Amino acid sequence: MDIRAQLSGDVAALTEAIIACESVSGDEKTLADAVESALAGLSGLSLHRDGDTIIARTDTGAGQRVILAGHLDTVPLPTTAGSRGTVPPRWEREQGGDVLYGRGATDMKGGVAVQLKLADDVAAHLEAGGSLDRDITWVFYDHEEVEASKSGLGRVLSSVPGLLAGDFAVLLEPTHGVVEGGCNGTCRFEVSIPGVAAHSGRAWMGENAIHGAAGLLRVLQDYAPQTIGVEGLDYREGLNAVRIHGGVAGNVIPDSTVVEINYRFAPDKTEEQAHAHVYEVLSGAGITRDQVRITDSSAAARPGLEHPAAKAFISAVGGEPMPKYGWTDVARFSARGVPAVNFGPGDPLLAHTDDEHVSADALRACHEALHRWLLGDVL
Amino acid sequence: MDIRAQLSGDVAALTEAIIACESVSGDEKTLADAVESALAGLSGLSLHRDGDTIIARTDTGAGQRVILAGHLDTVPLPTTAGSRGTVPPRWEREQGGDVLYGRGATDMKGGVAVQLKLADDVAAHLEAGGSLDRDITWVFYDHEEVEASKSGLGRVLSSVPGLLAGDFAVLLEPTHGVVEGGCNGTCRFEVSIPGVAAHSGRAWMGENAIHGAAGLLRVLQDYAPQTIGVEGLDYREGLNAVRIHGGVAGNVIPDSTVVEINYRFAPDKTEEQAHAHVYEVLSGAGITRDQVRITDSSAAARPGLEHPAAKAFISAVGGEPMPKYGWTDVARFSARGVPAVNFGPGDPLLAHTDDEHVSADALRACHEALHRWLLGDVL
Repeated sequence: MDIRAQLSGDVAALTEAIIACESVSGDEKTLADAVESALAGLSGLSLHRDGDTIIARTDTGAGQRVILAGHLDTVPLPTTAGSRGTVPPRWEREQGGDVLYGRGATDMKGGVAVQLKLADDVAAHLEAGGSLDRDITWVFYDHEEVEASKSGLGRVLSSVPGLLAGDFAVLLEPTHGVVEGGCNGTCRFEVSIPGVAAHSGRAWMGENAIHGAAGLLRVLQDYAPQTIGVEGLDYREGLNAVRIHGGVAGNVIPDSTVVEINYRFAPDKTEEQAHAHVYEVLSGAGITRDQVRITDSSAAARPGLEHPAAKAFISAVGGEPMPKYGWTDVARFSARGVPAVNFGPGDPLLAHTDDEHVSADALRACHEALHRWLLGDVL
Repeated sequence: MDIRAQLSGDVAALTEAIIACESVSGDEKTLADAVESALAGLSGLSLHRDGDTIIARTDTGAGQRVILAGHLDTVPLPTTAGSRGTVPPRWEREQGGDVLYGRGATDMKGGVAVQLKLADDVAAHLEAGGSLDRDITWVFYDHEEVEASKSGLGRVLSSVPGLLAGDFAVLLEPTHGVVEGGCNGTCRFEVSIPGVAAHSGRAWMGENAIHGAAGLLRVLQDYAPQTIGVEGLDYREGLNAVRIHGGVAGNVIPDSTVVEINYRFAPDKTEEQAHAHVYEVLSGAGITRDQVRITDSSAAARPGLEHPAAKAFISAVGGEPMPKYGWTDVARFSARGVPAVNFGPGDPLLAHTDDEHVSADALRACHEALHRWLLGDVL
């Protein structure tokens, strides 16, 4: 299905076309090309490309500028047989309406479809002689679902910050159609468990580095994550092993096991405080500092919903603000002094699951709310 | 270094040339080509090739036939920086003589060098008009260090058993130059720990399959392996995780962890009894049958040193017989009614370690003992 051809149709059909274009992190080129091609057909927008990140901007001379941001990549396809959250997507008729299943349905190709649909709306509005209260910047970026250092958004914010200057940003990550403020921080650690290699037929000559991970896994299994209130919103934390790898052959006592750990921390902590907490937990499993390497770290963002720009947005789209549990790129905008909130279609609890999905109603409601905010009229 | 050119020299230099030709399981072709080329230069031998397995035979019409067997492959190169048991090999002068370090020095390129050297001796003996008390079959085979189903020896024993018929076999696996009888059996299991995937920022929606492996690793860590006497020899057992793998991405709660387990069992047990024991241990970690898959299984071999052919060999090479801890292909020969023993250069405790090595003296002593047995004279 052609994304450009779907731009003038329903936002739900557009979402289906975007999901059908597989774009696991590192492999965003085909989708980035399609997005660029779709935007190139619209009048009144200037286009910019940096790797697989696409930026489109109106320049009507309005006094304010707002940013609509979303990432093009997804986590890998499910490995479990029979998973519905895969590619190609498919529609199912469920109680309450039509539901679209597919990798990225929730995180966040529905949001990308809404971004694109709004670009089509704005171009038509300008072509018809309409004006804008706020100029708009769209950014569609690569490498969000991997380590922070690879982020396309981070790259452009560093190399060409002027392209992404603005007064307020909306990140269309899934929030179930409510405004979510701030976000938890995230950091990752590689923990190395050493051993001594030997032939497995003479195991007593070696030291098993996989068995040596038992204590660490037990500590992680027993860890009780906290919930922490910040500016009236409750942030839930989490500390998890996300990958483990050990052993070289079926007849060798393993001399190394590596466990990758992800800590999601509330915005009451700095990155340094978060790292110190993880070191403390690991020391309870007998892990020393020299066994640990920090591989990724992103600060949390406080909610900041008291900012006038945030207040104006909330009043336009309605609803009661909630905390954001996952780390999102609102932290990158707020670190640069641009107030930012999460607002997008789909249930964030389904993100990265084997059957992620989004309803046609949720896609249309999000599109309508943002259309109302940007263009004032009702669809 | 050219293996063929080293055939007429010292067995230690020949070993060095063989180690220099890297041959990790699955990648034996270059070494098999070199062995075939070296044997093709000798008179009085018929040559056969099946994949990367090379067979050479004398056919003098002697009343008996003995087999000299060895594998060409090695386990992967060490991953630890500074390991000496790697490729290329190197000589070190240590207390007690010259020692050769390199992957396969112990297991079992020293044995392969002795096999080749004996082929050269026998060819020269026949060319000089000598006769043989026993015809000799040499077999150099692929894929010993991986799952049993890939074994080149197993393949040829099944497809062309006549090529490997014989009255007695010597397997030149490292035994420190003493005769080792029988061998432990070995079996491998893949244990799957299930989980439920979720975004790691909302870990409470998932179930962590890596944390779920904690109990299994603890049971393996606490397991006390037995030592079991069979026909007067003491066999030490072992039960170990040899590989672990779990997780798909740095921000996803893992929905699967797979632990590969290797059980080495004494020749008092059948394969079925060994499997039942492992199932019982795993059930203590809450693992059910449907989570376990047997991926590899090889029977143990009882010592069988009372066989006349075994007794004659022991009396020719001397020394006190010992048990074999590791599984070796003597089990394949004894399963086909061919009595077989292990006898080779190098310390079996060094096999697969990061600094495996063999002394020049051990290589020469093994060569001399087998030369004495086969050709009667002293080198």
